[in-house]
Amino acid sequence: MPNDTYPTRQLCDFIAQMKLDDVPAPVIERTKDLFLDWIASAIAGKDAPAVRRIQEFAAAMGPNGGDAEVLVDRRRTSPYFAALINGASSHVVEQDDVHNGSVLHPAAVVFPAVMAAAQAEGKSGADVLLASIAGYEAGIRIGEFMGRSHYRVFHTTGTVGTLAAAAAVAKLFGLDAQGINQALGSAGTQAAGLWEFLRDAADSKQLHTAKAAADGLQSAWLARAGFTGAKQILEGKQGMAAGMSSDANPAALTDRLGTRWATAETSFKFFASCRHTHPAADALKALMQRESLHADQIAAVTAHVHQGAIDVLGPVVNPVTIHQAKFSMGTVLGLVAVHAHAGLGEFEQHALQDTRIAAFCNKVTMELDEEINNAYPRQWIGRVTVQTTDGRTLEARVDVPKGDPDNTLSRPELEAKAIQLGAFRHGASEAEMRAIIARVWRLEQERDVTNWLPAGR
Amino acid sequence: MPNDTYPTRQLCDFIAQMKLDDVPAPVIERTKDLFLDWIASAIAGKDAPAVRRIQEFAAAMGPNGGDAEVLVDRRRTSPYFAALINGASSHVVEQDDVHNGSVLHPAAVVFPAVMAAAQAEGKSGADVLLASIAGYEAGIRIGEFMGRSHYRVFHTTGTVGTLAAAAAVAKLFGLDAQGINQALGSAGTQAAGLWEFLRDAADSKQLHTAKAAADGLQSAWLARAGFTGAKQILEGKQGMAAGMSSDANPAALTDRLGTRWATAETSFKFFASCRHTHPAADALKALMQRESLHADQIAAVTAHVHQGAIDVLGPVVNPVTIHQAKFSMGTVLGLVAVHAHAGLGEFEQHALQDTRIAAFCNKVTMELDEEINNAYPRQWIGRVTVQTTDGRTLEARVDVPKGDPDNTLSRPELEAKAIQLGAFRHGASEAEMRAIIARVWRLEQERDVTNWLPAGR
Repeated sequence: MPNDTYPTRQLCDFIAQMKLDDVPAPVIERTKDLFLDWIASAIAGKDAPAVRRIQEFAAAMGPNGGDAEVLVDRRRTSPYFAALINGASSHVVEQDDVHNGSVLHPAAVVFPAVMAAAQAEGKSGADVLLASIAGYEAGIRIGEFMGRSHYRVFHTTGTVGTLAAAAAVAKLFGLDAQGINQALGSAGTQAAGLWEFLRDAADSKQLHTAKAAADGLQSAWLARAGFTGAKQILEGKQGMAAGMSSDANPAALTDRLGTRWATAETSFKFFASCRHTHPAADALKALMQRESLHADQIAAVTAHVHQGAIDVLGPVVNPVTIHQAKFSMGTVLGLVAVHAHAGLGEFEQHALQDTRIAAFCNKVTMELDEEINNAYPRQWIGRVTVQTTDGRTLEARVDVPKGDPDNTLSRPELEAKAIQLGAFRHGASEAEMRAIIARVWRLEQERDVTNWLPAGR
Repeated sequence: MPNDTYPTRQLCDFIAQMKLDDVPAPVIERTKDLFLDWIASAIAGKDAPAVRRIQEFAAAMGPNGGDAEVLVDRRRTSPYFAALINGASSHVVEQDDVHNGSVLHPAAVVFPAVMAAAQAEGKSGADVLLASIAGYEAGIRIGEFMGRSHYRVFHTTGTVGTLAAAAAVAKLFGLDAQGINQALGSAGTQAAGLWEFLRDAADSKQLHTAKAAADGLQSAWLARAGFTGAKQILEGKQGMAAGMSSDANPAALTDRLGTRWATAETSFKFFASCRHTHPAADALKALMQRESLHADQIAAVTAHVHQGAIDVLGPVVNPVTIHQAKFSMGTVLGLVAVHAHAGLGEFEQHALQDTRIAAFCNKVTMELDEEINNAYPRQWIGRVTVQTTDGRTLEARVDVPKGDPDNTLSRPELEAKAIQLGAFRHGASEAEMRAIIARVWRLEQERDVTNWLPAGR
């Protein structure tokens, strides 16, 4: 088959040819929103034990100093280790973005890799925007290509995230289509990440985003140096889909390239929990407001969900860590019912300590819903049925959860969220976050993307 | 289920409790053979382009100096990058060992990780032997557990190799069963490596061994620091087998622990090619000797093979690189027929240049053989049928290929092979190789395992 007729190559051709002028202005603006949301999430990962261990590993194995910035400790190291640590810290508070159709968290893998490489190579804000959009467009399509069967066992942000980061950095490096293809080949053959860790509340999720960002950067770096990879790493007979999917769809790889901007379909998180809990949380919140209901008037809640929610949240029965509680439908609905929100602060203060939350947990069950499951992952519908203590059965439904593109966060909401994330572990002061916000809103004019935070305190 | 009743934990218990005194003396001696065979293979990877690119990456991203030795350039770096480069160089000349039942190349992933960690931590030769045996025993059983379905798409040495390296370094660090389990959890969730690269003769195989060794070391390092991983990473509902195998056998994980020493079942390579070509090459060589046949008297050869040979060698139709030629059954049989051997020298001088080899290639076909396929991977039977130019049909069969435990290489043969490997790219002089050989034969008495070669030339 000629070089340019396989889907992976067509995707690479598109990425290679893409220019910032081709990207509609609202997509560029949305990318800046996503970048701000990411940098704040990465700063909020400060002091998380899993992130600390990865910082220690980098200190033991990497150079003492370098061109790339580590957001959580304000040190400098080589791009590989900066991508590793910033990747680890991006996802830990579960406040980073998600793309519904691919069930990929692009920010946590794309931006750490692009920023580290851009800092080392003196690239501009415009370069970063273009490369990041390339990473989102590629990663989202690859996630959709891998299908729902992949996500049942594999953490798509770990596996597909490696290719998203590779595509982004390959674009930043200005590689041609063949070079981008080589980068994807090396990234795909390193793609890994299993959901099994959920059962033990283990630290693997941070390892997945860390390694996806760093290995993606490495794959692009190697490709630029001439290191080769499999061309049909995605659709080939012994490629990713053959090994890790039973419903892969090659047409997804080239879906409306240049007319559909998947980047702008990415959702922001309003609650500080796994995205699979958000639709039901929105529905419960709406129901309680509508009915002026209090938590102690609720006898039982059924969350009607898609299968992916059961796969990911099902194993979490008695959450013992805050991070695990973010994967407990019962805890999230409990926080919404008792405290009206399930943000970072509610998780820290109430998720494990408040006996009302544990009691509420026991009232919550998940039930597979055929309509919701069929709409997923295109649409994440929330529906809850509530039994009240006085014997009523109430229902509510939310078609577009808060944070989705059709119900997105405004810039003031994004700024407020970013400042909260900076304050969470004293990762950045309000003044520092406001300086970051100002730079991000004019990112396409920034000559360099270094020194987001003053060096080491 | 209680902690100690799942197979992964039982394997970890065994590794944690293992002492060198428990290991039969012949197994320890065989491990020294394997170590010598590895260090020579790693030195022979010098100047291979794929290895060079990984050295450049390490120079850009890692520290300038450290405790761990890079064999191909005699520099020092951190253990992570030493494991990465030595892992990359171990497998490139295709002369490193292989375990038949698991289709795993343990040396290329276990020894680079153990040596790098041991050098950084001041461990002894006895420590290295014990840790390496732990890595082999765990890795081989995990490879057998993953089954034949895994190997059809995944390069087991990349995937399972990550866990083998992690088990070895975790043992070197003296972790308890729980710690070893955490290391396996982090290793398994990073396990990757797809065969798709074979179709393009791409460099991924070197990336697989490099990353398996380095990521295995990283997983053990993180586990010691308290970073947690999934406990049932192998047999769990969303673990490795669930995602990457359809015929996993949990009983294999605990197969005769303490009585079966799988390390000693490992085979040495006599030919410098993919092990799947060796049984047929042995059979053709035996046939030609028996019949006093010359290459130009052969009209056609049918190699009767197992399915794994067809999966791995089948995609290689017209080899364009020496490395790819090592995966061409036609080239290997051609070298044996025309030059009586398919060693490193024959590949370098004749595999691509000699028109007789290309002509012989066209005479070779592979055919799936039911008996051979059923015996595989326990036994690697070689059988060829030859049509002579004068119309005869001849057959030969070899039940135990040269290099297998029942037809192993003697110490003089291993020493000669090691000296040849050292000379191949002037990686080490004969005197240097003889000094290494002397140290390896008394490895259990060596106080340290540093400085195998004099620093930087």
